[in-house]
Amino acid sequence: MRIRKALVTAANPRQRTLPLQTLVDQNGVTKSALQIVLEEAAGAGIEEFCVVVCPGDEAAYAEACGALRSAVRFVTQPAPRGYGHAILCGREFIGAEPFLHLVGDHLHVAQGGTSCARQLIEIATAENASVSAVQPTRESQLTSYGAIGGRLVGGDRPLYQIEAVLEKPTPTVAEQQLIVPGLRAGFYLCFFGLHVLGAEIFSLLEEQQAAAPDRPLGLSPALHVLASRQRYLAFTVAGRRYDIGAPYGLLLAQLALSLSGRERDRVLTQLVELLALRPNES
Amino acid sequence: MRIRKALVTAANPRQRTLPLQTLVDQNGVTKSALQIVLEEAAGAGIEEFCVVVCPGDEAAYAEACGALRSAVRFVTQPAPRGYGHAILCGREFIGAEPFLHLVGDHLHVAQGGTSCARQLIEIATAENASVSAVQPTRESQLTSYGAIGGRLVGGDRPLYQIEAVLEKPTPTVAEQQLIVPGLRAGFYLCFFGLHVLGAEIFSLLEEQQAAAPDRPLGLSPALHVLASRQRYLAFTVAGRRYDIGAPYGLLLAQLALSLSGRERDRVLTQLVELLALRPNES
Repeated sequence: MRIRKALVTAANPRQRTLPLQTLVDQNGVTKSALQIVLEEAAGAGIEEFCVVVCPGDEAAYAEACGALRSAVRFVTQPAPRGYGHAILCGREFIGAEPFLHLVGDHLHVAQGGTSCARQLIEIATAENASVSAVQPTRESQLTSYGAIGGRLVGGDRPLYQIEAVLEKPTPTVAEQQLIVPGLRAGFYLCFFGLHVLGAEIFSLLEEQQAAAPDRPLGLSPALHVLASRQRYLAFTVAGRRYDIGAPYGLLLAQLALSLSGRERDRVLTQLVELLALRPNES
Repeated sequence: MRIRKALVTAANPRQRTLPLQTLVDQNGVTKSALQIVLEEAAGAGIEEFCVVVCPGDEAAYAEACGALRSAVRFVTQPAPRGYGHAILCGREFIGAEPFLHLVGDHLHVAQGGTSCARQLIEIATAENASVSAVQPTRESQLTSYGAIGGRLVGGDRPLYQIEAVLEKPTPTVAEQQLIVPGLRAGFYLCFFGLHVLGAEIFSLLEEQQAAAPDRPLGLSPALHVLASRQRYLAFTVAGRRYDIGAPYGLLLAQLALSLSGRERDRVLTQLVELLALRPNES
């Protein structure tokens, strides 16, 4: 199994402008969030990209691609019919290959020298299976993510065989269905916004769509079915995801990038200066 | 003198996307940098806005205006002929009134409850003169700003009569021509990106343009002439400017807004969590 295509979703109307936001990467270079996402994937071996956008956003996105522009094809999602539907829009581009899927509004900061995308692709290739990156996440944040239940199968590696996938479960439901032995109490394995999936996900999404053609199509229900039909894994990558659409998400993503990058000292110095200013007297 | 119009310049091709960046304001509300700039001015009594943009950027900027959209007119600068030329593009909109001028890529965080724009408009109205906001700035940053020389005329207020204006002076030139008694050694009064100007600035800009029609037209040379012809003041507003186009400028602007806003504690908590993560081991 070789992963050489990536599908990036960025068509959520409420999050359209997020991938166009400007950040400074770990090397101190200013670029768009989209470019940081694409470069992480390219560094993990991805050669061709498909970005799913809202109609009319192609030009702004193309400008935000940087040097990878020529490797990126844009596909539009004609109407906001859900995250799963956005993924379906990339079906023709992906064809029959397994692929890397990233969401356009999450940035990843790896711990150590191997990017999160590369960690995930390496484990998917070694296991020859679909693998979703996950992160232990506080119960209070379940309202923002898809979450999984499963059992540890990796020995000393944080690798799980997925038994259930639920989108934004309530704490009660999560407690009943998504317990993962070995996690700290009150923590669940939530999606990282980074998956290696086989092309069979498209037929599963179509099944879901056919069953409820008038409802927005999610990804989690199709992944839940995937887990019942084949060996589908979750892997806790060494790193953190930053949802730039969350409150202060851009700020935290930028801080995380800077504090793990080569200009850590410079940013820390400016931070200390700012903290030394008196808070508003108003 | 009543100031009811504002001219915002945002047509610098290298800085076009900055006002469209997303930030969280001091009340915790997510909005564009442009909207934060416009709202500061509106809060200081501005009723009508003209934003000078690159051709083609009108739609994206209109979307970034938020609730003030209907009070904003867009004017395009057909070619990148300099900052002064961008201001000239707003001449018809301004007419014969004095006006507030803001640059689209600077955010201001006031110390105390009165916004920087309001502080400046109040002093300009009281003095019935053109006034530029300034900030004592380290010599090492002279390369980024216009700087003034002058003498204190405000008694116990930091108000100066301007005698010279130089754009991005070298330290040697600044030392010879821009000394301001009372400032700390190695500091100069640099522009804040916020001015109250009379309509006569447009004829001064035209004079400059006629004298060197093939060169980019700056603002500082026209302001230098203004100082020689009439009483033109500088005022150190209580607050700080954040150039979001500077390296880590967005990060620092966002931190400054957050740390002076109502969600200071929340942001500080997240900041401490981030600082507690180990730096990369790579």
